[in-house]
Amino acid sequence: MLNPFFKNNGPFVISEIKKILNINISDIKDDTKVNDIKDLNSSNNSDITFFHSKKYKEIASKTKASLCITTDFLKNELPPSCIPLVVENVLVSVSKITSMFYPDSINDDFDDSVYHIDKTKFKDKVIFGKNVLIGKNVSIGANCKIGHNTIIEKNVSIGDNCSIGSNTIIRNSLISNDVKVLDNCVVGKHGFGFFPNKNKNLRYPHIGIVIIEENCEIGCGSTIDRGSMSNTIIGKNTYLDNQIHIAHNVKIGENSIIAGQVGIAGSSIIGSNVRIGGQAGISGHIKVGNNVEIGGGSGVIKNIPDNTKVMGYPAKNIREFLRDNK
Amino acid sequence: MLNPFFKNNGPFVISEIKKILNINISDIKDDTKVNDIKDLNSSNNSDITFFHSKKYKEIASKTKASLCITTDFLKNELPPSCIPLVVENVLVSVSKITSMFYPDSINDDFDDSVYHIDKTKFKDKVIFGKNVLIGKNVSIGANCKIGHNTIIEKNVSIGDNCSIGSNTIIRNSLISNDVKVLDNCVVGKHGFGFFPNKNKNLRYPHIGIVIIEENCEIGCGSTIDRGSMSNTIIGKNTYLDNQIHIAHNVKIGENSIIAGQVGIAGSSIIGSNVRIGGQAGISGHIKVGNNVEIGGGSGVIKNIPDNTKVMGYPAKNIREFLRDNK
Amino acid sequence: MLNPFFKNNGPFVISEIKKILNINISDIKDDTKVNDIKDLNSSNNSDITFFHSKKYKEIASKTKASLCITTDFLKNELPPSCIPLVVENVLVSVSKITSMFYPDSINDDFDDSVYHIDKTKFKDKVIFGKNVLIGKNVSIGANCKIGHNTIIEKNVSIGDNCSIGSNTIIRNSLISNDVKVLDNCVVGKHGFGFFPNKNKNLRYPHIGIVIIEENCEIGCGSTIDRGSMSNTIIGKNTYLDNQIHIAHNVKIGENSIIAGQVGIAGSSIIGSNVRIGGQAGISGHIKVGNNVEIGGGSGVIKNIPDNTKVMGYPAKNIREFLRDNK
Repeated sequence: MLNPFFKNNGPFVISEIKKILNINISDIKDDTKVNDIKDLNSSNNSDITFFHSKKYKEIASKTKASLCITTDFLKNELPPSCIPLVVENVLVSVSKITSMFYPDSINDDFDDSVYHIDKTKFKDKVIFGKNVLIGKNVSIGANCKIGHNTIIEKNVSIGDNCSIGSNTIIRNSLISNDVKVLDNCVVGKHGFGFFPNKNKNLRYPHIGIVIIEENCEIGCGSTIDRGSMSNTIIGKNTYLDNQIHIAHNVKIGENSIIAGQVGIAGSSIIGSNVRIGGQAGISGHIKVGNNVEIGGGSGVIKNIPDNTKVMGYPAKNIREFLRDNK
Repeated sequence: MLNPFFKNNGPFVISEIKKILNINISDIKDDTKVNDIKDLNSSNNSDITFFHSKKYKEIASKTKASLCITTDFLKNELPPSCIPLVVENVLVSVSKITSMFYPDSINDDFDDSVYHIDKTKFKDKVIFGKNVLIGKNVSIGANCKIGHNTIIEKNVSIGDNCSIGSNTIIRNSLISNDVKVLDNCVVGKHGFGFFPNKNKNLRYPHIGIVIIEENCEIGCGSTIDRGSMSNTIIGKNTYLDNQIHIAHNVKIGENSIIAGQVGIAGSSIIGSNVRIGGQAGISGHIKVGNNVEIGGGSGVIKNIPDNTKVMGYPAKNIREFLRDNK
Repeated sequence: MLNPFFKNNGPFVISEIKKILNINISDIKDDTKVNDIKDLNSSNNSDITFFHSKKYKEIASKTKASLCITTDFLKNELPPSCIPLVVENVLVSVSKITSMFYPDSINDDFDDSVYHIDKTKFKDKVIFGKNVLIGKNVSIGANCKIGHNTIIEKNVSIGDNCSIGSNTIIRNSLISNDVKVLDNCVVGKHGFGFFPNKNKNLRYPHIGIVIIEENCEIGCGSTIDRGSMSNTIIGKNTYLDNQIHIAHNVKIGENSIIAGQVGIAGSSIIGSNVRIGGQAGISGHIKVGNNVEIGGGSGVIKNIPDNTKVMGYPAKNIREFLRDNK
C-alpha cells in the first residue's frame, strides 16, 4: 500500500476473512483470493475495502473493490459489483484484516535484527559514532553522518548529505537529501491510534511511513509518528525546533517554520510557508492553509484559510486577538 | 513505608533525632528507639510523624505516633501520648529526618551498580537489545523485550509480556503485565520537590515509587516521576501518548487516554475513563472525576466533577467554552 | 568573542571579506587585516561590526569598528572612522562573515572526536557509567558522576561535585560546581536560528555557549540551546523541572523555579526569584523582572515588571485573570 516497506502477507482467501470477522455470507466463493486491503478509492476488484461514514458515500458508490467492510446502514450505497461484509464496528474489523495482511504494522517492539554499523556495508561509507546500530532494509546515501548510540531500525532510506544526531531512533522512514535530524528524536514509530476497549485497548495497524523531504531540519527531542493508512510528511526545507510532536498522518508543506514544543495532532494538513510559534497546538483533522502565521501558544481548533495570521486559544484573527486582549 | 525498595536505615535513638533537628527536649529518654517516619494516620507508637497544617488537626488528634514534628502553634492539637518536637519549618525538618531513615531517596545520581544484561540471570529469559543494563533488585517476568541502550536501574519489577523500548531509563517502579513503555522515556526518577532556599535549595526525599498497571502504554519521550510520600500510579489499560509529563504523587485511573504533550502537576488525582486532549495541563493537587473529557490545550486549575466535558484556560464546561468563543 | 571555545580563524584581509559579500569598495586597502567580528559596542578598530536596525543608531554612532556591514538607509549614522559595507541583507551578510571567522559554529553534527572515558585522563577521577564518551577540550572537576551513554562533546567545562545523568549530551557549555543535569537532556546545541530562504534556509552561526551556574538542577528531557551572538545563562540555584526548552540567548537569574514543560523563546531575560508554573511559555525578546510569579499554562507576550504575579494567555495580573474568569 502506502508503505514500500511492509510486506503484504496476502493474498488470503475469503474463508479466512470471514472467519476473522466472524461473518457468514454465501454470495462469494470461499476460495476466492483477496490481494490487499485498500481505501475506497484505490482498491481494485481483487481487493477488500471499507466504508464507515456517510460522508464517503459518493466515493463508495464508485469503488472497484469486490468486497467492502461496512454497516447494515451503509451497505446499499455500494455498487452491485461490490459485496458488503456487514459488521458492527467497521474500524475494528478493518484493523483486524489489516493486521492479517500487514502483521508487522501493529507492534513497535524494538528492532532486534540490528547490527553494529561496523558489521555492515555502511562502515566505509558513512561517518559514524560509537554504538550505532543498523536494521534490515536500510539504505544510506553519500556523505552522511550518524551520531553515537543512534539506531536506524529496519525500513529506512536516507539520502545524501544527511546528518543524524546522537541517541536518535528512526524506522519506517524515507529521508531525502540534505536533511538533519538532531539528537534524541524518535521518527517513524506508530501513532497514538487504537480502539478504546475496556481492560485492553485494541491497537490498529500503522502501515504508513514518515517522509522527510530535502533540506529539512528536525530539532532535538522531537517525535514524528508514521501514518496509519496514509503517510506523515514533512515538506522540503521545513524546519522543526526542539521537542516538537508530529502525530500520525500529518502533512506539512514546504518552507514552513515550526518553533519549540509545538504539537500537531493526527491527520492535520499544514500548508507551505507556514510559521507556527512556540507551544502552539493544532487539533486533529484540521487544515491550515498556505502562508499562515500562528502565534506562539495558540490552540487551533478549526481550519485556517490561506494568508491569515491567527493567535489565541481558540485561535482567531490576530487583530481580533490583540483587540480583545488590550 | 510506601516503597518496598528503599531500605529503612532505622531504628534511630531520640538523641540522634534531637541533634539533627537541633532541639532540646527532656520529656523523653535519649536512648528511646524510633523505628520509622510515617504520616499522622499510619504511624505507630514507635514512629515519628509530622503535622504542619491546621487542616490535619482532626487526624493529628488521633495519631498513635509517640513523637511529632510540628510548630508551637499546632502542638496543642496532639494527643497526650504524642510528644511534640517543635521546629520552625516542619517540612524542612521532616525532610532531614526522612533522609536519615531513607538516605537513598534523596539523590538520583545514575545507578553505578548495573551490569550488562548478558552478565545477569535474565540473559536467557528476556529478548534484549545491545547495551542493555540491569541494576540490583530487579525482577522481569516471562516473555519480555527490552530495547537497545535501555537501563533498568535498581528497584524495578516488570511483569510478563512487557515491551520496553530503546534508550529508556526506569528505576523504583512496579510494572504490571502487558505494559509497553516506548523509547526515550524516564520513569521513576524523583519529582520536582524541594524547599526553596537562597543559594542552595534543599531537596526532600522521594520514598514513593511509580506503579504502572496492566495493559498500559507509555509513549516516547515521556517522563513519570515517582512519589514523594505516596506513589505515582497509572491505572490499568490507560494509554499515554508521546512527550507526556506525569509529576510525583499523581494517580490516574483505568481506561484513560491522554494525548501528546499533556502535563499533570504533582499530587493530582485523575479518574477512570478520562480523556485528555493534547497539550492540556492539570495543576497540582486537583481532582478530576471519572468519565471526564478535557479538550486539547485546556488548563485545568480546579476540581472537575464526574461525567463532565471541559475545555479552555481556565477550563470550563465545554458548552460554555464554545458559546464564549463563537 | 563570547565563546572561549570556538577558534577564531582570523585575521582575514579586506579583499576576502569583499569577495564573500560581493561588494566593491575602494575606501580601504585590500590587504588591511580584520581581526574579528563583534557587535557595535564591543568592536575595536581592527574589527568588523554590523548595524541593521534604526534602534541601534545611538550605539552605532559611537562604534570603534573600522568596518560595518549595514544598509544604504542606515550608513550615514556611522562615525567617519567607520567604513560602511552596504549590503542588501545585513543579517545574512553577518552570518557569512561570522562563518568565515568561526566555521565550527554553524553545524552541530555529532562530535566524532570523542573517546570512551576509560581512554581519557578522567578514568580515575570521575565516577562514570557504561559507554560514556568524552570530546576534546573538556575539563571535569572533583567528585563528579557521569551516567551511562552520556556524551560530553567538545568544549565543555564541568565544575566540582556535579552529577550528570544518563543518555545526556552536552557541548559548548560551562557548568559550575554542584550542578545536576538529569537524564536525556541536550545542552549546548545551536539554537533555532536561521534566515528563511526558499528551498534552502541559511543557518546563522551560534558562537555563544551555555553557562549553568552553581547549584542548578536541570530536569529530564530538557533542551538548553547555546547562544548565537551572546550566551544562554541559567543563574545559580535555579531549578528546572522535566521537558523544559530554553532557547538561544535566554538568561535566567538566580533562585528561580521553573516547572515542567515550560518553554522560553530566544533572547528573553528572566529575573531572579522568579517562579514559572508548568507549561507556561515566554515569547522571545521579553524581559521578566525579579520576584515574578507566572501561573501555569500562561503565555507571556510582553515584559513583566518586578514583584508581579501574572497568569493567562496573554498573561495579565493574576487578580485581573481570576476576576475575568470567575
